[in-house]
Amino acid sequence: MAVDLTPETAVADLAQRTARFVREVVLPVEEEHRGVVRSDAVRTRLQTAAKEAGVFAPHVAPEYGGQGLDMRGRALVFEEAGYSLLGPLALNIAAPDEGNMHMLEAIATPAQQDRYLRPLATGAVRSCFAMTEPAPGAGSDPDALTTRAERVPGGWRIHGRKWFITGADGAGFAIVMARTTGEPGDRGGATMFLVDADNPGMKTVRHIETLDESLFGGHVELLFDDCFVSDEAVLGEVDEGFRYAQVRLGPARMTHCMRWLGIARRAQDIAVARAAERRLFGSRLADLGMVQQMIADNEIDIAASRGLITQACWELDEGRSGAQSTSIAKTFCAEAIHRVVDRSLQICGALGVSGDVLLGRFLREVRPFRIYDGSSETHRWAIARRTVKRHEQAAGR
Amino acid sequence: MAVDLTPETAVADLAQRTARFVREVVLPVEEEHRGVVRSDAVRTRLQTAAKEAGVFAPHVAPEYGGQGLDMRGRALVFEEAGYSLLGPLALNIAAPDEGNMHMLEAIATPAQQDRYLRPLATGAVRSCFAMTEPAPGAGSDPDALTTRAERVPGGWRIHGRKWFITGADGAGFAIVMARTTGEPGDRGGATMFLVDADNPGMKTVRHIETLDESLFGGHVELLFDDCFVSDEAVLGEVDEGFRYAQVRLGPARMTHCMRWLGIARRAQDIAVARAAERRLFGSRLADLGMVQQMIADNEIDIAASRGLITQACWELDEGRSGAQSTSIAKTFCAEAIHRVVDRSLQICGALGVSGDVLLGRFLREVRPFRIYDGSSETHRWAIARRTVKRHEQAAGR
Amino acid sequence: MAVDLTPETAVADLAQRTARFVREVVLPVEEEHRGVVRSDAVRTRLQTAAKEAGVFAPHVAPEYGGQGLDMRGRALVFEEAGYSLLGPLALNIAAPDEGNMHMLEAIATPAQQDRYLRPLATGAVRSCFAMTEPAPGAGSDPDALTTRAERVPGGWRIHGRKWFITGADGAGFAIVMARTTGEPGDRGGATMFLVDADNPGMKTVRHIETLDESLFGGHVELLFDDCFVSDEAVLGEVDEGFRYAQVRLGPARMTHCMRWLGIARRAQDIAVARAAERRLFGSRLADLGMVQQMIADNEIDIAASRGLITQACWELDEGRSGAQSTSIAKTFCAEAIHRVVDRSLQICGALGVSGDVLLGRFLREVRPFRIYDGSSETHRWAIARRTVKRHEQAAGR
Amino acid sequence: MAVDLTPETAVADLAQRTARFVREVVLPVEEEHRGVVRSDAVRTRLQTAAKEAGVFAPHVAPEYGGQGLDMRGRALVFEEAGYSLLGPLALNIAAPDEGNMHMLEAIATPAQQDRYLRPLATGAVRSCFAMTEPAPGAGSDPDALTTRAERVPGGWRIHGRKWFITGADGAGFAIVMARTTGEPGDRGGATMFLVDADNPGMKTVRHIETLDESLFGGHVELLFDDCFVSDEAVLGEVDEGFRYAQVRLGPARMTHCMRWLGIARRAQDIAVARAAERRLFGSRLADLGMVQQMIADNEIDIAASRGLITQACWELDEGRSGAQSTSIAKTFCAEAIHRVVDRSLQICGALGVSGDVLLGRFLREVRPFRIYDGSSETHRWAIARRTVKRHEQAAGR
Repeated sequence: MAVDLTPETAVADLAQRTARFVREVVLPVEEEHRGVVRSDAVRTRLQTAAKEAGVFAPHVAPEYGGQGLDMRGRALVFEEAGYSLLGPLALNIAAPDEGNMHMLEAIATPAQQDRYLRPLATGAVRSCFAMTEPAPGAGSDPDALTTRAERVPGGWRIHGRKWFITGADGAGFAIVMARTTGEPGDRGGATMFLVDADNPGMKTVRHIETLDESLFGGHVELLFDDCFVSDEAVLGEVDEGFRYAQVRLGPARMTHCMRWLGIARRAQDIAVARAAERRLFGSRLADLGMVQQMIADNEIDIAASRGLITQACWELDEGRSGAQSTSIAKTFCAEAIHRVVDRSLQICGALGVSGDVLLGRFLREVRPFRIYDGSSETHRWAIARRTVKRHEQAAGR
Repeated sequence: MAVDLTPETAVADLAQRTARFVREVVLPVEEEHRGVVRSDAVRTRLQTAAKEAGVFAPHVAPEYGGQGLDMRGRALVFEEAGYSLLGPLALNIAAPDEGNMHMLEAIATPAQQDRYLRPLATGAVRSCFAMTEPAPGAGSDPDALTTRAERVPGGWRIHGRKWFITGADGAGFAIVMARTTGEPGDRGGATMFLVDADNPGMKTVRHIETLDESLFGGHVELLFDDCFVSDEAVLGEVDEGFRYAQVRLGPARMTHCMRWLGIARRAQDIAVARAAERRLFGSRLADLGMVQQMIADNEIDIAASRGLITQACWELDEGRSGAQSTSIAKTFCAEAIHRVVDRSLQICGALGVSGDVLLGRFLREVRPFRIYDGSSETHRWAIARRTVKRHEQAAGR
Repeated sequence: MAVDLTPETAVADLAQRTARFVREVVLPVEEEHRGVVRSDAVRTRLQTAAKEAGVFAPHVAPEYGGQGLDMRGRALVFEEAGYSLLGPLALNIAAPDEGNMHMLEAIATPAQQDRYLRPLATGAVRSCFAMTEPAPGAGSDPDALTTRAERVPGGWRIHGRKWFITGADGAGFAIVMARTTGEPGDRGGATMFLVDADNPGMKTVRHIETLDESLFGGHVELLFDDCFVSDEAVLGEVDEGFRYAQVRLGPARMTHCMRWLGIARRAQDIAVARAAERRLFGSRLADLGMVQQMIADNEIDIAASRGLITQACWELDEGRSGAQSTSIAKTFCAEAIHRVVDRSLQICGALGVSGDVLLGRFLREVRPFRIYDGSSETHRWAIARRTVKRHEQAAGR
Repeated sequence: MAVDLTPETAVADLAQRTARFVREVVLPVEEEHRGVVRSDAVRTRLQTAAKEAGVFAPHVAPEYGGQGLDMRGRALVFEEAGYSLLGPLALNIAAPDEGNMHMLEAIATPAQQDRYLRPLATGAVRSCFAMTEPAPGAGSDPDALTTRAERVPGGWRIHGRKWFITGADGAGFAIVMARTTGEPGDRGGATMFLVDADNPGMKTVRHIETLDESLFGGHVELLFDDCFVSDEAVLGEVDEGFRYAQVRLGPARMTHCMRWLGIARRAQDIAVARAAERRLFGSRLADLGMVQQMIADNEIDIAASRGLITQACWELDEGRSGAQSTSIAKTFCAEAIHRVVDRSLQICGALGVSGDVLLGRFLREVRPFRIYDGSSETHRWAIARRTVKRHEQAAGR
């Protein structure tokens, strides 16, 4: 058995069909909506088309209507879906639903899967993942978790404030992370709860206006005000929430990278098309050295991103922790993808800044990725710590 | 006479008063409007306040109500005004009016000055500068100018299309650059014309949606369709337009840098305030090395930008061409200012991406500056050519 | 068959034994000689030890004493060998011998293989590859080839000048690239010739002093002055030299990357060890954020380099051209490896600059790699051209 | 009085004469010695020529044979001297003698000035400055100072180890920094001592081999082993050494920048000359976009460095602390100068790596400047701390 980068035939085929679906069906809708859709009708129309094209929800198990793609398979298909801002929505693989499905498959009870995963997988409902808190709560430092759930007769009462809860507006339910042991600042224990959207204790404080605008359902601030949930709402084991979060976060980090890598390729395609046609100073842009440098650097960044995603996905599929490799891939991809979009916009000049192409929109969408899902600084800190620890362990031998 | 960086007392005083005015009067309005004002009433209110504060239109000659600041003086005052997105508007030193006043002072006839400069200097009207054309017309390469003016009895008829004409919506008049000799691709001769807003031959095609949104009057596409102007509309000499454009462009490049440098300082102040107060992993952000590195790099970029602006302004005030030094300063400042805003946003994390601070807005505003007023690539090309030519001349000695 | 990054067991085992051999046997010799060996006795001693350890010449076919590693296998083993500047010499996989063996296996006649490949594979002789010429000859642009071979009765006469011929001093033979058709500037045809060291027409002009010094046999300028070779000296077909050069260059580019990646890891290990022990301002270096950033960036650069090497090697093993993927990998690796060594030296501070560690030596060795084997600029130009051509072909469909 | 960048006429004239002297007299010697001189005879020959040319020791007061240049004046003249690696030696403005003269003028007694400054200023002797210690002693963190001086009858006894003592080999005397109060890790007090070279208590342990090699007298490790000095050896006041070190370090940082900026310009001149003459792919290098980008970036880095030096020098001449502005200038210049040399070498390709030009030598010389005189990380840490403190003071108002 040697190193082999040949994808499975079925996966390669699905990726190709996804690419075609995105170009033929999704791009026109994206053009019409300038990349930002807020209507459930449009979402449903796109998802119906994806089902017809046989490319819908490929990551979930067949019993939920998918094809059970492993992480390596997702890497190929999600990148193709990500070629449009609306591709992930169409395939039902957008954040945060995709990561929630992943986690529900892994740790929910059969009853919870029936009630929450099944409709999520078909697109009948959407969901959100309520972990991040405004400062000084849980953000880059999960141990700072301040939202708290107290055990009460027959269930739990949740108190706390969450923000940047992506997709919360219109979501059918939330997966809520709350502290059940210890105090903010020490690890203690956290527990995940499934909270229905109509629970009166879960209140939308506001929509947070953000630089990015394409994630369906926005970024929302939520207040949990004496929010009661029954024992059936506990997802997995009590006090195991931090561990589950890792289960979700590693793969979720990677699927973000895959989707945004699609946008990077798209930006490059727009820029190359422009460079091949636009003339300046008597040359094609594509024949000017500084433009060639940007085009080449884009190719390099895209290829390197893909290589790091492959490595991390393979580790995750092998059952390894992937902590280091997903941190490395996320940090590099977030910065590289931003560079690619930024250079592509630069190549297009004033056109790139204008709404006549979507590059400015893409730039706004990818910039926050250097902050979301662990900022570049937090990941670098973690990468360095693991590297030094590895050294100390080797030296201790 | 030695090198001396001490500003004139009157200028230092004006800069200080401008800084106070911006903090006390302009920032609340900016906050209220999230940095983007489209109402003439708000503009007038700000300008009235600036007049009362004695900081209005400091760049024009005293006879037009200003203080006749030279470029070095502008460097200090405009940076302070630029601390808010609305500061330049309040002082009536925003693009493109500021550059147009500069040029009208330099080359308009007394009659033209009375009719166009005087109301422009008081803020009674606004103006625009119609030079840039959609590809394959004049952009980075001015010789590609395709808009054409033909001499007809009693005046001229202008035909052509312009885009990215900043401030055109609501402007009282346009300064229009049109070819009067030669063909696109060779230099030939261009002439500048003063065209009143109510001229039926000048038509607004559309507002161009752009990543940036703060420049009053937007970016507009204009059509000149058999647009007749009389001989009195000629600004300066016929066929001297390219030379006048240089008169305008060097200083205009620098005043852009000054204003955006103010925003860079503002972004840094927001980030430092956040870093000094926010705690993460048991430390203040401001005590974490990676944050310190970003703070320090911001300081370095700001200081280096200021040094290059000073150099270029001094050359312009000395009557030198400033072609090389303004290209160098513009290229560096556009990139450095973008880095500063980008790092500041990164320091603030999710908050930085949110509308709770204006950093995302600032990022959108400064990004196009790497393209506007000559892209970084065009300037680098010009810098390198001049450098090689300088070498060849030295070698030829 | 899915994407799989698990190496073959035998290869993994060989890589591990190579790593152990380098640490136990090679590093002490490297330390003694400060990384630069010029003595054949030391070379032979190292190679004998490698034979005893069963790690010698793993890339050549078993009939020549090796293990016939494919490119993916080389990627693992060569990186381990490259952990010391002397590892590749010890394993007989240093440039240019390794690439020459690769080419001789591929295109030499059995008689030529017996005479040239066999002793080369055992380390009995060394070789060089004489392609590069001083300006304005063949360098980044192979078409500029000026060295010329004329057909004469019984063979050929070679005229021309070559420089930067690595390993030429003491080499038993040279593979010489000479033009046999056309004129410098057009492609025409080139032919490769095997020239024995004692051929009186091949003269050493001088050793070129270079920033790097670790390649055995130095960088030499050679003069071919009416150098007669018989028809048996033709390697492969007449006029097919440019094509063969590509056969050699793609893999050779990758093996350079593999070896230098080993040095990057070594530099990082030195820096991490230092950071884990040295205290500054009351903290360990390893706990200071700016140092952590450098450590993390090193990990990222190493991982991304490895990913790109894997991709390119897989393509080459699959029989694809690998032109784009080897250019991408070479460009990225050359720059990333330099960054890793540079940061590692920075982490070590004054110690890093001193001869007490080998980081300054490593920096000198890796810097030229951004120029050798096609400069970063030449590769970026090629990458961009292929990208634009790919776009045009896609658009043409 | 307005901002004015016009240099004094006498200074401009001296700078011009220095430039001519370097080109006509110094460059041939540099070429002959490949940039590294270790012979006192050559040093004396160069200095005699500089005296004849009227450009010798321009920084010291007229009574010591100089012209009493202030920091702004030095900025111009030292940059011209720095155009050759040997220029500063010729003018007697090389490190560490130049900084020592600066300090001796400022704080030595008349008797000490007679004995030490006078012969130093004429080049009759050289000197060194013994402050830096091997880890865990004084380096980036001066408070870690471990060398200790005990008061004994009639004087002091110094114990400790110093390293990276530039110029120590052959120096007539050392200025030695030793702790006279407190313990390593707290500030306490330090005192500077003048120690003659023939003091038996000051012993050379070894020459430290370093990446850079051009500083006359090398980098030396010194042992102070019960080294007795009399009370007359105290330079300035007891326990005021840390303060004096700041007096020396700010200006010394700047003069390093000035000299290395000269080398950056030299590297750029070599690269531009090459680019203007070398042809590749049918174009001059100087007409290829990626080369133009490097040439332009060099111009930008050089101009920005000069601007930051000017700012810091003006502050120092005004009597301000200059702590922030010298840190900013040093950090930027060290990195920018390295980039300029690195790009210049890249432009020259294989030639740049070879000893046929001195670019590889320059690269080795400037790389350590990012570590010497406070590493970039230490300066960034200090810059950030001052920035945050400035914010806190402003907020506290």
